[in-house]
Amino acid sequence: MKMLASFALAVAAIGLSAPAAAQFQKPEDAVKYRKAAFTVMGAHFGRIGAMANGKVPFDAKVAADNAVIVETMSKLPYAGFVPGTDKGDTRALPAIWTEQVKFNAAAEKMQGEVSKLAAAAKTGNLDAVKTAFGAAGQSCKACHDDFRKD
Amino acid sequence: MKMLASFALAVAAIGLSAPAAAQFQKPEDAVKYRKAAFTVMGAHFGRIGAMANGKVPFDAKVAADNAVIVETMSKLPYAGFVPGTDKGDTRALPAIWTEQVKFNAAAEKMQGEVSKLAAAAKTGNLDAVKTAFGAAGQSCKACHDDFRKD
Repeated sequence: MKMLASFALAVAAIGLSAPAAAQFQKPEDAVKYRKAAFTVMGAHFGRIGAMANGKVPFDAKVAADNAVIVETMSKLPYAGFVPGTDKGDTRALPAIWTEQVKFNAAAEKMQGEVSKLAAAAKTGNLDAVKTAFGAAGQSCKACHDDFRKD
Repeated sequence: MKMLASFALAVAAIGLSAPAAAQFQKPEDAVKYRKAAFTVMGAHFGRIGAMANGKVPFDAKVAADNAVIVETMSKLPYAGFVPGTDKGDTRALPAIWTEQVKFNAAAEKMQGEVSKLAAAAKTGNLDAVKTAFGAAGQSCKACHDDFRKD
């Protein structure tokens, strides 16, 4: 119970305000939710990446609109990392729960980089978007390397 | 091409600004994206429902926070209804593309009701939330009845 409570407090810092476990009826609901949030985030992040990498022409408004969505989405998935949900249809590694301090730091790092990306996109400057996109992408990869199965 | 263009225009009204088909590399990416957006929307909508239905105590801030997320999410999935994506891992009915005017109207209806729900939640009045939640739920159901497989 004490562990659950401290987990909920940690989640509150990086995600929603209610205790994580209370928000999902079943463990698989939490897994499905967090994966869905990452899927939506990734789709919009990828659209900025296509512009940052020169695959599609840079459109400042489209980049900014997508970055706002990425920033909103970045706050959602962590409520879904309820203790005990390293089973089933998930690539989540147990380290998420055994190394919570490190995991939360990785989440906060990503959220921070994504906020910087949104700020960069608002300026309409492609070089700023490229730099911020690269840093945000690194923060995604760092967490995947440590906390997600290949 | 002409049909695609008019579809893109219709999508622009209910969703994002870029042509829908251009946003996904593969049809299955569009399917996965729209399902994910609905999953996230449904999770947050359900939390308001739990309060509207008296299953958990009403917390005006939590309701309002969730309603803002629902409103944001309500704008996303429609870009994923790319023509030809009624196949694979989806319950989307072909009527989505053969009855586009009706489908778009159903989408706009839901988006309108969800916006009203967000406004109601901001007031902090549980009765207003209950009424708006019921209307929004009806708009979900109406679209599922006509455009989603059982």
